[in-house]
Amino acid sequence: MDFHTELNKKIKLVDDALEQLLPTAETNPVTIHQAMRYSIFAGGKRLRPILVIAAAEAVGLEGQKVLPVACALELIHTYSLIHDDLPAMDNDDYRRGKLTNHKVYGEGMAILAGDGLLTLAFQLMAQKDGNGYNNEKALLQVISEVALAAGTMGMIGGQVADIEAENTVIDGEALRSIHARKTGALYRASLRSGAILAGATQKQLEALTKYAEALGLAFQITDDILDIEGDESKLGKKVGSDIKNNKATYPALYGLENSKKMAAQALEEAFEALASFGSEADLLREIAKYIIKREN
Amino acid sequence: MDFHTELNKKIKLVDDALEQLLPTAETNPVTIHQAMRYSIFAGGKRLRPILVIAAAEAVGLEGQKVLPVACALELIHTYSLIHDDLPAMDNDDYRRGKLTNHKVYGEGMAILAGDGLLTLAFQLMAQKDGNGYNNEKALLQVISEVALAAGTMGMIGGQVADIEAENTVIDGEALRSIHARKTGALYRASLRSGAILAGATQKQLEALTKYAEALGLAFQITDDILDIEGDESKLGKKVGSDIKNNKATYPALYGLENSKKMAAQALEEAFEALASFGSEADLLREIAKYIIKREN
Repeated sequence: MDFHTELNKKIKLVDDALEQLLPTAETNPVTIHQAMRYSIFAGGKRLRPILVIAAAEAVGLEGQKVLPVACALELIHTYSLIHDDLPAMDNDDYRRGKLTNHKVYGEGMAILAGDGLLTLAFQLMAQKDGNGYNNEKALLQVISEVALAAGTMGMIGGQVADIEAENTVIDGEALRSIHARKTGALYRASLRSGAILAGATQKQLEALTKYAEALGLAFQITDDILDIEGDESKLGKKVGSDIKNNKATYPALYGLENSKKMAAQALEEAFEALASFGSEADLLREIAKYIIKREN
Repeated sequence: MDFHTELNKKIKLVDDALEQLLPTAETNPVTIHQAMRYSIFAGGKRLRPILVIAAAEAVGLEGQKVLPVACALELIHTYSLIHDDLPAMDNDDYRRGKLTNHKVYGEGMAILAGDGLLTLAFQLMAQKDGNGYNNEKALLQVISEVALAAGTMGMIGGQVADIEAENTVIDGEALRSIHARKTGALYRASLRSGAILAGATQKQLEALTKYAEALGLAFQITDDILDIEGDESKLGKKVGSDIKNNKATYPALYGLENSKKMAAQALEEAFEALASFGSEADLLREIAKYIIKREN
């Protein structure tokens, strides 16, 4: 399998589904739908929806059949970025080289656009007909797990802990706990959602959960490294902001070289978790490699 | 049935369930859970959850069994108030006589507390075990309908339209359309959720939907009237803000006396919609009366 061909095929699948599932820019009230579409089509990597699809395929279900849930995970990720960028939070003017949502549509509309995306995510997941399969129990479990991962015990809680940790000294365990919630929980929910919808066995579900946790860690360490060594033109944002903002990061706590070793070790753990899967999990293996080699 | 005894019993049922279903104020990260609890326990009338319960009982299901969905509707209502009060939206310092969420916890935390309540609402609805019944299909339909009602085609869309209508001249139809979305959609979803969970027939569901629409209209007209004739100490907010903000209201468009007639007519329609129900719908009848006689 050529990874980049396969990846681009999946990205197109997700982009087409998002195009179809989001209200058009002409739907009333038009402003909010334009604001929602602006951030959804602002150049995201579609990592979470692709993980949903890849997990389903690793267990043996055609990826096409989990598209509404896959898109829901992207909507939740995007809403969290819109709200995190607000002046009352991180106060960022740019994201992926483009103006942030509130810089284009104003703060009030950006808050509502985030609310709209979060709400639409749950609507998409609950639309049984759109999901192309027939397991209502699995769908309820997915909604429950995604809500838990996105909520105050997961992503939102991580963001709160991150804000509260600013300008304080935290240790490695606290750092890991913040990221496990702020970004890790949604990766975990993505993998588990695809697996649950595909009817994974308990053993398969546990293996994919381990993979997700290792992947989340590798992703975060790489993110911290890119903020030091990355190329601003490829990242679409300024580097050095973590140091400037006095943020706790893996390189700050463990040093740059040790951080790279930790990322490589997390990659190994991700591979090991997939040991009982055959070639149908190759996409998940390639994604893990890509996560730590990426340039943006 | 003594209405106020019955109403207070239901309020206690909902309050106890909310107390149990929300993370405690000691749950980490504590700040956000305190912020969520602050607004949830700030003196709301619990109208939406009581409508869920009353609709279920009108169709013959014990109200206790729909408590998680009933509480979810209150969470969604409360999140929308927290976000609407923000400086970037209505910029209100007080709500129900208490400081608004962002005045106590700051804007960033208020945004996240709203996000947390919205997310928790869907988590509660998807928790089959908590709901005390066994119909997964009905639960998925409820999640789907609630999301649609709370989203950009419902409540959020109404808020956007309301903001965009400020300082413009709108007609009665536009005013009705704004309120049908901004507040009406969630009443409608409350009634329908209770009915769907109770296994309502198509005819029962249609009747309760008509009741909900009439009730929503009566509520809004009364709200507008209270902003003119209400008692500030009972309302917990200043009157006259609609006129000050040059807002389109029923009294502004139709005059105060005509507005009162319209509210009474909506009340009649609500009663008529319940004609095929017996005494098990008495609570719904009393609620409709209470809606237009209320003082806050």
